[in-house]
Amino acid sequence: MSDSIFSKIIRGEIPCHRVYQDESVLAFLDINPLSRGHVLVVPKEPAATMADLSDPAAAGLGKALPRICRAVVKATGAASYNLLQNNGADAGQEVMHVHVHVIPRYPEDDTGLRVSWKPRAFDHDAGAELARKIARLL
Amino acid sequence: MSDSIFSKIIRGEIPCHRVYQDESVLAFLDINPLSRGHVLVVPKEPAATMADLSDPAAAGLGKALPRICRAVVKATGAASYNLLQNNGADAGQEVMHVHVHVIPRYPEDDTGLRVSWKPRAFDHDAGAELARKIARLL
Repeated sequence: MSDSIFSKIIRGEIPCHRVYQDESVLAFLDINPLSRGHVLVVPKEPAATMADLSDPAAAGLGKALPRICRAVVKATGAASYNLLQNNGADAGQEVMHVHVHVIPRYPEDDTGLRVSWKPRAFDHDAGAELARKIARLL
Repeated sequence: MSDSIFSKIIRGEIPCHRVYQDESVLAFLDINPLSRGHVLVVPKEPAATMADLSDPAAAGLGKALPRICRAVVKATGAASYNLLQNNGADAGQEVMHVHVHVIPRYPEDDTGLRVSWKPRAFDHDAGAELARKIARLL
């Protein structure tokens, strides 16, 4: 159980620029945005990472995303956008309460999420073994 | 409706290194991985972007994510990981069928997702107006 800044925002102890709320999630503008209309979607359940989130909270989070994306696209005019969710300090997570970044991408001024994409070689034998290992844990 | 490579994988016309399947999603190893254990989670519904996904498909996608993340973490030993979902060509989407990247992050060899994070100034008055505009569309 986390009691992060997001829990305080959910409880109304800290203000936010709210865009959406339902029984599962609260969504509001990120005040350190990568681009105009950068929204954070936060499950009300105080799980630190995606792996910690309960099934109902995760289903509620998933269900909220399309409608929030549609409204962000319509309000901002951004044709493209990225969803990013970081888990663990080494993955860039700063607030230890699950949150999904919805980040509009504006090629005209190059704002939004920029990633460095460097695929690595894939070994099919090792991959098959790893896939079986993951599948057995599911 | 898309008929992408992912639809063909879902129909079994193209093989994959499957890790999970339920009524809503199929998950398999990305064969152009950013790191060991890079998994794609694909809703069976052939929506191009998150904004196009139906509520039930989005809820099913959300519900599948924690269990897949737990298994990837356990199988790979990665303590940190990123989830990324790209929408639109300008956001780096290459296959026009919704897919969530689950990307383990290994600081020891610097593999995984690397992002450039450059927050911009936030104007609270303009933010309040934009938040109201998004909220009205929801």
